[in-house]
Amino acid sequence: MDLDDLPTPALVLDRRVLAANTRAMTARMRRLGVSLRPHLKTAKSAEVARLALEGNFGGITVSTLCEAAYFLDHGITDILYAVGMAPAKLDRAAALGDQGADLKIITDNAYAAQAIAAHGAAHTVLIEVDVGDKRGGVVPDGPELLEIARILDGASTVTLAGVLAHAGHSYECRSDEAMAAVAEDERAGAVMAAERLLAAGLPCPMVSVGSTPTAVFARDLGGATEARPGVYMFYDLFQAGIGVCGLDDIALSVLATVIGHRRDDNTLLVDAGGLALSKDRSTAALPEDRGFGLVCDAASGRPYPGLRVRTAYQEHGIVAADRPIDFDALPIGAKVRVLPNHACMTAAAYEAYNVVDSGAEVVASWPRCNGW
Amino acid sequence: MDLDDLPTPALVLDRRVLAANTRAMTARMRRLGVSLRPHLKTAKSAEVARLALEGNFGGITVSTLCEAAYFLDHGITDILYAVGMAPAKLDRAAALGDQGADLKIITDNAYAAQAIAAHGAAHTVLIEVDVGDKRGGVVPDGPELLEIARILDGASTVTLAGVLAHAGHSYECRSDEAMAAVAEDERAGAVMAAERLLAAGLPCPMVSVGSTPTAVFARDLGGATEARPGVYMFYDLFQAGIGVCGLDDIALSVLATVIGHRRDDNTLLVDAGGLALSKDRSTAALPEDRGFGLVCDAASGRPYPGLRVRTAYQEHGIVAADRPIDFDALPIGAKVRVLPNHACMTAAAYEAYNVVDSGAEVVASWPRCNGW
Repeated sequence: MDLDDLPTPALVLDRRVLAANTRAMTARMRRLGVSLRPHLKTAKSAEVARLALEGNFGGITVSTLCEAAYFLDHGITDILYAVGMAPAKLDRAAALGDQGADLKIITDNAYAAQAIAAHGAAHTVLIEVDVGDKRGGVVPDGPELLEIARILDGASTVTLAGVLAHAGHSYECRSDEAMAAVAEDERAGAVMAAERLLAAGLPCPMVSVGSTPTAVFARDLGGATEARPGVYMFYDLFQAGIGVCGLDDIALSVLATVIGHRRDDNTLLVDAGGLALSKDRSTAALPEDRGFGLVCDAASGRPYPGLRVRTAYQEHGIVAADRPIDFDALPIGAKVRVLPNHACMTAAAYEAYNVVDSGAEVVASWPRCNGW
Repeated sequence: MDLDDLPTPALVLDRRVLAANTRAMTARMRRLGVSLRPHLKTAKSAEVARLALEGNFGGITVSTLCEAAYFLDHGITDILYAVGMAPAKLDRAAALGDQGADLKIITDNAYAAQAIAAHGAAHTVLIEVDVGDKRGGVVPDGPELLEIARILDGASTVTLAGVLAHAGHSYECRSDEAMAAVAEDERAGAVMAAERLLAAGLPCPMVSVGSTPTAVFARDLGGATEARPGVYMFYDLFQAGIGVCGLDDIALSVLATVIGHRRDDNTLLVDAGGLALSKDRSTAALPEDRGFGLVCDAASGRPYPGLRVRTAYQEHGIVAADRPIDFDALPIGAKVRVLPNHACMTAAAYEAYNVVDSGAEVVASWPRCNGW
């Protein structure tokens, strides 16, 4: 089967680019001396996980318990669920443990820590540390860290496994220097928290850090034991826009069909809108606003200069350009590919990847695990 | 089962509100003297379709051929696929016809019209007319309309069924007067196109108009035969923000769990982020920006004054407030419900609706038809 035979919109994954991305990150984490625990929240695919785990220790990160169950079904047992634990989800987490998962959960508050301690089932827990992102986590130098650690360590069913930090504010950075500085904040905050636990006689075998920008720009991860980048497998226009990757490193795209011409308006209509591309507008904050995605040649995946999806209705995308569109080169029925602003959001609309090897032939279909 | 027993995030649909919305639109279209052909692109559910079709003629509108196949499976045969036809989709459309669908497709260009005419299978086609939205459609007073009509009417396998207009620019309106004016543009443009076809001796039995704002604010639909609103079944914060409905009319919400407190920042963390709520930021353009959604009491569905989801990460939402948050009223583990900016986008992340009757008891689970 060829890309041209696929009903549109469809999700396309370039395995050759993906493999280059996973190899590069594996090599990079090895050079920095930390284990790579890839975050599968973007890919949600066992086949992608296999590539991401090549040359690594086998542990993964997930963002939902649904992903945890799916990857356990595919033979992966060392799973870190990196969203603050809700007490009502403890039964499900324990059931995954019963089924063979070495599941690690996280918390950042005494209330949930007490619920975990009182739950009765065995749980392995990391404490989430805030290193400046102001999303989840306790500050590394405050009293809550030790309070939570003592609650967890005091419960016979709980294993206190360490600390976890995520410098999501690396996405706000607009220079390599700034990202390197945030990476150092992430490392230093996590290590400070770990040292405080150890100094208090508490265990801290894991010091987990990571986001794609900090993994790419960190100069030193001394004291960290592992990193958890995720979107590096596919990359996207936002990551390219902040300088984390090039456009050629983007492995994910949406195949669409030209369904209308508006010569008077210098626009094209494609059958990929807000559902197919997502409504993510993260590139609006960057020097080069990519609209809802860059329009590329379907066969080669190379961007048409100046073409972007300007407007996204539910099933319609309006493609605008900063120069006259060559309508004859893009007739009604022509296929195009659209690079996404945010790979995690775009991929979530699809049940499966149509896999290519930098060509037009679809060599495989890889299912995804959506939902919660 | 109770809302409190559901794993979060989860999609909640209030059947009582839904039924009031569908009844009101049915009555309104009857008063205006047009048939209601509800657009199922928002709901994508046979059970919702049943309510929307009560008291109506039985025809529906869809936005994907996947929806067409799904609703046909559920016994609905009169189906209008309201996205410009891509030639490569004609085989699938014809197959639906073979399976019993009375499928209507649309086009706005001679190239696709020729492909439809040359396809050989039977197709029923409407010509899409642009009434100011500048998305799809030919202008009602230009030469393309008759050119396309003659191509279609000249093919023995094609039934030219009429014209279709969608005044999507009604979403840009900020007053009832402006919406009524756009509704009149939509009606007048569609009727002008229909009259031109008839004057040229061409058939035009259907004159189809519609969007939710124009359906709600139209004062006269004389000459139109049917209307195709869709989001009115659920409504959302955008529709409320432009005055099409009240907050109490919103039937859809996302159930989420409080997973973190940030008293220093006056924010809460919930386990519903960009995937659970969508990244739609349509309310950013309105006087009251609702962030990624308004936070409500889980049991009653009533908004907590001033609480909205300010930031949406993949699986985290940061809830901010314009006043001090009562953290004790929203402890870790508490459930909340979030009203969405854009119901069509938010619902698409879920496999099913958890149905309530304005209470906390989940009385049914209604599957959805996602994808393409």
